[in-house]
Amino acid sequence: MAAALKMLRKMQDFNELNITDSVIERFGATPNPRLKQLVSRLAAHLHEYVREVEPSFEEWLYAIQFLTRTGQLCGGGRQEFILLSDVLGISMLVDAVNHSRPDAATETTVLGPFYVEGAPLLEDGADMSPGMPGEPLYIEGRVIGSGGTPLEGARVDLWHCDKDGFYDVQHADLAASTGRGRLRAGAHGKFRVRTTMPVPYPIPYDGPVGELLTATARHPWRPAHVHFMIAHPGYETLVTHLFASDSAYLESDAVFGVKASLIQNYVRHEQGPMPDGTPVAGAWRHLAFEFTLKPQG
Amino acid sequence: MAAALKMLRKMQDFNELNITDSVIERFGATPNPRLKQLVSRLAAHLHEYVREVEPSFEEWLYAIQFLTRTGQLCGGGRQEFILLSDVLGISMLVDAVNHSRPDAATETTVLGPFYVEGAPLLEDGADMSPGMPGEPLYIEGRVIGSGGTPLEGARVDLWHCDKDGFYDVQHADLAASTGRGRLRAGAHGKFRVRTTMPVPYPIPYDGPVGELLTATARHPWRPAHVHFMIAHPGYETLVTHLFASDSAYLESDAVFGVKASLIQNYVRHEQGPMPDGTPVAGAWRHLAFEFTLKPQG
Repeated sequence: MAAALKMLRKMQDFNELNITDSVIERFGATPNPRLKQLVSRLAAHLHEYVREVEPSFEEWLYAIQFLTRTGQLCGGGRQEFILLSDVLGISMLVDAVNHSRPDAATETTVLGPFYVEGAPLLEDGADMSPGMPGEPLYIEGRVIGSGGTPLEGARVDLWHCDKDGFYDVQHADLAASTGRGRLRAGAHGKFRVRTTMPVPYPIPYDGPVGELLTATARHPWRPAHVHFMIAHPGYETLVTHLFASDSAYLESDAVFGVKASLIQNYVRHEQGPMPDGTPVAGAWRHLAFEFTLKPQG
Repeated sequence: MAAALKMLRKMQDFNELNITDSVIERFGATPNPRLKQLVSRLAAHLHEYVREVEPSFEEWLYAIQFLTRTGQLCGGGRQEFILLSDVLGISMLVDAVNHSRPDAATETTVLGPFYVEGAPLLEDGADMSPGMPGEPLYIEGRVIGSGGTPLEGARVDLWHCDKDGFYDVQHADLAASTGRGRLRAGAHGKFRVRTTMPVPYPIPYDGPVGELLTATARHPWRPAHVHFMIAHPGYETLVTHLFASDSAYLESDAVFGVKASLIQNYVRHEQGPMPDGTPVAGAWRHLAFEFTLKPQG
């Protein structure tokens, strides 16, 4: 037994260099090759980080507790891990590595934590925020394929914050969804919808991600924008925002979501009516944009 | 405005290479230099990983949901993020970068998720698992400083699993703690305690970490061990395990916690009494170990 134990002792001595190889070796039997790559390389990169910064036990425990609190805050309208991914620029980077844009296609950006599946289906031209206070906004869109083909029937989801900077899901007491809707592009790939003008807003900063921003002297603000998700058979689903060119924070979006081609003029008109004849008391905005989808594969 | 917008557009174009610099720059005003290093380098290493493996949107979302579920399983006797850190070898690596062992000091290993603060204080020689079934175990320890000074009064926490492989905190219905205790080293730095023999056990595998192990064809088992945390003013607190040299899984501990010097003979005796005269019906084990603490600073 002494010899066997001696051999075992020799085999077992992990140190800060060889433990990474041991972990990667332990993942060696993973049946799915993609999963094997994802977990092995994750361990390798995290180990590199630990070797470089040499966290103390207390710093490691703080990280454990930070991640725990981040998970425990998720639920209902809140997804704190997406926020964490967003403020570290990871969401935008994942977007970037997945979307090498062909010249013609509309650029993509992050999904964000406020998308909701199964939004109400609206008629073309409907008001998706009835009774909601704020500057009226008229959105006219056209959906085409990168070859120029109008994509009639494309499914368009759109969502944005209210005049106080909150999404409907952040209001616990809200009965119906508002500032949010789904519609189908009609003839020539066109769609129209009425709503209210979004404003810059802070991402939720009363949780761990807010602590991180505060401790690193970063602000939580995003420039004013409307989210779009546009899907059509045979095309890659487009997830993007359109940012108002006169908004604050275009240069310092807390989640790094701004791309130049997505900054658009939400044209201000001093009086109505809107293009569809809807009367307006006072100023309103007009956003027109052509969304170009990329063929699949 | 056209010129300003053009300039802004030029500034804003993040791509998969320059976004990392933008994120690091955004952390540039962090007042605490250590935090600045920790967050900037974390972003840099995570971005490297993303650029290397190019996760799809679905893989990213799976990761978000995995981390969320990991956080939400924490609470009570469960710390799933520590388990995740453990099975990725990160806990052991953090331990390694913090403990360059001087020749004489006892080697350290992971804390694990089952440590509980404020364990009951026992008299020297007490039974810390009264009435608990299992092979009786007599532990004799001695605590010294690396110069050889006996550390009388050292605080010794110890904890281990029961004969079925569960810690007391994993039993929802347990009234008092068992397999767990705290005592003070007496004259010559010596302490003694009676308990039961631990067995190999699987780390909890009914959660996200278990899914990860299953998907990567890894087993969740740890070799039989007793945990120790030993503290004395003027010395670094020692966190370690002692592994039974006849246990299974010494070569494939799910959390990479085994070090050669921590593999010890839990000597088996066919009959009693124990060294303190306690009668035993049948076989029992005897573990004797000298713990050497490293001076602070």
